[in-house]
Amino acid sequence: MQKLYTLAQLTQGLDVTIRGDANCLIEGVCTIQDSKSGYITFLMNPLYKKYLATTNASAVILSADEGEECKTNAILCRDPYYIYSQIALFFDNRPTAAIGIHPSAVIGQQCEIDSSASVGANCVIQDNVKIKAGAIIGAGCVIGESCEIDEQTRLDANVTLYHHIKLGKRVIIASGTVIGSDGFGIAKHKGVWHKVPQLGSVIIEDDVEIGANCTLDRGAIGNTLIAQGVKLDNLIQVGHNVRIGKNTAIAGCVGISGSATIGDNCLVGGQSGFAGHITVADNVVITGGTEVSKSIHEPGVYSSGLGGLVTNMEWRKNSARFLRLEKLMQRVKVLEQALETLIESKTT
Amino acid sequence: MQKLYTLAQLTQGLDVTIRGDANCLIEGVCTIQDSKSGYITFLMNPLYKKYLATTNASAVILSADEGEECKTNAILCRDPYYIYSQIALFFDNRPTAAIGIHPSAVIGQQCEIDSSASVGANCVIQDNVKIKAGAIIGAGCVIGESCEIDEQTRLDANVTLYHHIKLGKRVIIASGTVIGSDGFGIAKHKGVWHKVPQLGSVIIEDDVEIGANCTLDRGAIGNTLIAQGVKLDNLIQVGHNVRIGKNTAIAGCVGISGSATIGDNCLVGGQSGFAGHITVADNVVITGGTEVSKSIHEPGVYSSGLGGLVTNMEWRKNSARFLRLEKLMQRVKVLEQALETLIESKTT
Amino acid sequence: MQKLYTLAQLTQGLDVTIRGDANCLIEGVCTIQDSKSGYITFLMNPLYKKYLATTNASAVILSADEGEECKTNAILCRDPYYIYSQIALFFDNRPTAAIGIHPSAVIGQQCEIDSSASVGANCVIQDNVKIKAGAIIGAGCVIGESCEIDEQTRLDANVTLYHHIKLGKRVIIASGTVIGSDGFGIAKHKGVWHKVPQLGSVIIEDDVEIGANCTLDRGAIGNTLIAQGVKLDNLIQVGHNVRIGKNTAIAGCVGISGSATIGDNCLVGGQSGFAGHITVADNVVITGGTEVSKSIHEPGVYSSGLGGLVTNMEWRKNSARFLRLEKLMQRVKVLEQALETLIESKTT
Repeated sequence: MQKLYTLAQLTQGLDVTIRGDANCLIEGVCTIQDSKSGYITFLMNPLYKKYLATTNASAVILSADEGEECKTNAILCRDPYYIYSQIALFFDNRPTAAIGIHPSAVIGQQCEIDSSASVGANCVIQDNVKIKAGAIIGAGCVIGESCEIDEQTRLDANVTLYHHIKLGKRVIIASGTVIGSDGFGIAKHKGVWHKVPQLGSVIIEDDVEIGANCTLDRGAIGNTLIAQGVKLDNLIQVGHNVRIGKNTAIAGCVGISGSATIGDNCLVGGQSGFAGHITVADNVVITGGTEVSKSIHEPGVYSSGLGGLVTNMEWRKNSARFLRLEKLMQRVKVLEQALETLIESKTT
Repeated sequence: MQKLYTLAQLTQGLDVTIRGDANCLIEGVCTIQDSKSGYITFLMNPLYKKYLATTNASAVILSADEGEECKTNAILCRDPYYIYSQIALFFDNRPTAAIGIHPSAVIGQQCEIDSSASVGANCVIQDNVKIKAGAIIGAGCVIGESCEIDEQTRLDANVTLYHHIKLGKRVIIASGTVIGSDGFGIAKHKGVWHKVPQLGSVIIEDDVEIGANCTLDRGAIGNTLIAQGVKLDNLIQVGHNVRIGKNTAIAGCVGISGSATIGDNCLVGGQSGFAGHITVADNVVITGGTEVSKSIHEPGVYSSGLGGLVTNMEWRKNSARFLRLEKLMQRVKVLEQALETLIESKTT
Repeated sequence: MQKLYTLAQLTQGLDVTIRGDANCLIEGVCTIQDSKSGYITFLMNPLYKKYLATTNASAVILSADEGEECKTNAILCRDPYYIYSQIALFFDNRPTAAIGIHPSAVIGQQCEIDSSASVGANCVIQDNVKIKAGAIIGAGCVIGESCEIDEQTRLDANVTLYHHIKLGKRVIIASGTVIGSDGFGIAKHKGVWHKVPQLGSVIIEDDVEIGANCTLDRGAIGNTLIAQGVKLDNLIQVGHNVRIGKNTAIAGCVGISGSATIGDNCLVGGQSGFAGHITVADNVVITGGTEVSKSIHEPGVYSSGLGGLVTNMEWRKNSARFLRLEKLMQRVKVLEQALETLIESKTT
């Protein structure tokens, strides 16, 4: 049975003002456009403001300056999405992990696994692994030799860590992600590629979250580093020796080539790509689909290519037009010369 | 030993006309360009029509209007590729799954697993999971709490379902795919990202096929929805709250940002990307590599960028030319004024 | 304790000249910019040449013509990165796999597993699989029916092979990679997609290396082929019937559509995409992010689109400017006609 909470209970300790009935009972969260009585919602994206007048939600979390237009109970605050994130925790239905080591898990020698940690069914923990208090290793994970997993860190099912990987505290890694695979180091000699041993590791600092089916390669010599508070979405490739700075957030399907360095507090849109050996400053925003082909030294918003979604017919025209650009330049040059001749002939 | 079938047996119940020997024995399928006697092939892609005259296949499936040019037995029909798909089933060598639960599988409490279902070796089935008749769970899969897997659905090896995921009938999910991971919901507060709980789920309707190593995130509040008959290729990212309409087919490496809605019967080329919160109408075709940066309200074929594969030298010239475009515009303006002056001086 | 080697020991059998102290003891490798005494480094990328004068490394591997500028012991050679790759092997800390079959592994019927091979914990080996001498199957791998894995081949943890896949000698496959999933073959009939059975397989020749979370689909009729010495980075999609020629190297996040053929000795940059049914010649270089939309018949370097990383503001201007290009062309036409009229009126 769903537990109910009053608005007062849900917002205890949060920096908000309740306007309306603080004892209103809430049984869950809803979106503003698909709302019902007994539920709480939030308004952050201006696209959805139009639903504010008609929402059936029993309460709306929103910024104070939009409060006037809210016809129901309002949770006024400076940061509605953050406040929502804290309230939504009351309704989280994620199953809790059983403490202890599942009997089907295979545990190597000289491991140190805290008694408050959870190791799921069919996990394989290789030798010399350390798993600290409250850490959760999902079913089917494989943890390589000499890995260290710090307190309260959670690996979902079927995550793979290679050997000697270090994860900080409260790290979350979604299913299918692989950490510590060999970097793409190959040396051509007499027409054939030779593998370059990848001797570094991967360091994941505290409070990092990594999505599903990502790949993070181990360093070639030093380490690949994901700094504190970094958030990675799904299907992201992180090459060897890459360094991602604190609190940078990267959307899905991004590829980061080896030895690239990305600063703190950056935002990277989906399907962007970073060339190798470049450096991106702090506080840089990269829009989706951008090829970051060179270093960026100043904060700002950056893009590449042309963009512009058009019909395929228009797109074909654009391409044709572009190819005629050189001809156009020549025609302008001819015009300029003709005009000059004409003016000269007139003035002489 | 390979079983043999006559053309009559292979086409029983299909809407085709056999021209030639209906008793011709067929032992397998081949391509039209790499063909041999005793095998059947098909012609659909016009690129391969040139091989029709010289193919060694014992029979060719093709459309009636191309039948004249076929020198061997012909299966005439309206839809050669579909007819091929039905005939090829006779030669499928996919191993059959053993009915029942493999003794190495770990089964949670209060699961309902139909006796005709197959649960592979080293699977982990968490509590309260329902698996219906004829469903196949490949080796190494992890099925989260309270998932429901309907009749005849097949999960290949090492698929991961998070909790509360619902799969319809006859769904196929290839290896490495992750369904129900948390959406990329993060809220910045005082310079630090906070995780936004992802409380929705993923609903996969009947007859959906999903390729390998895809990621489909659970909804933030409502559900992510993959409607009936959708076909997804490999390495596709589906963000939280996304809805993909009936019978839409999406090629590999596509990224769909959160809360995007894609209509019915769409076709999406590989490596395309969809911005968040946009809506794409029914019957839209997106060519490969397109960034769908805004909503599309009308059926049609859409593209973005410039395209145009050229030599790198030409590409560098193009970029330089493009950067001179503003200068060119200024030169044309100068020309226009000079000409105007000239004409005025002439007429006065 | 770290083992120490003299420069003479490290370079035994390699085609190099030691300049300085051949008995200098080395305990590990370092980068040229982050170096310390007792370690050896290399110089290949000209970007890092500036560190040569100040490096603390006890020895530097570099080409003979740069040797003059090296202030410490130098390993002079023609191919510094290759020489480094051989020396680095001395310091590889990858754990060695235990020979034999882990008791938790599930082995099918009629398998032939060489006694010198290693099968990791919780592996699932289906029926009729052959695993040759010295092969290593990492923990959690699932190997489908009738696969053949040749000598010295290594699968890291959680790799999935479907049925009937053949891997050559000394192949390396990183974690999470899926080989032999069904190709994206669907046929529309009466408005609904039908699955086309994928009856071919995947052949991986000797000395191929494949990164993490890649997907390689089985052929529709014939086989998908990865030829000898090919190197694939992470998160690469290889469609059905694709053929990749010898010693071709492909960076991460590349998508190759079905039935594309790529030649020998090609280099492909990250996030590139290949259209289906095209052919790329030998010795072709594709720069990162390129859409290879048509066949390439000549060796050379190829690119697509416009590139050009700029600020988002500049990018918006570029797009606007581009859309005014047609107007500009019309204005030039008007100018040309006006000028012609003027010249005619002057000469008559």
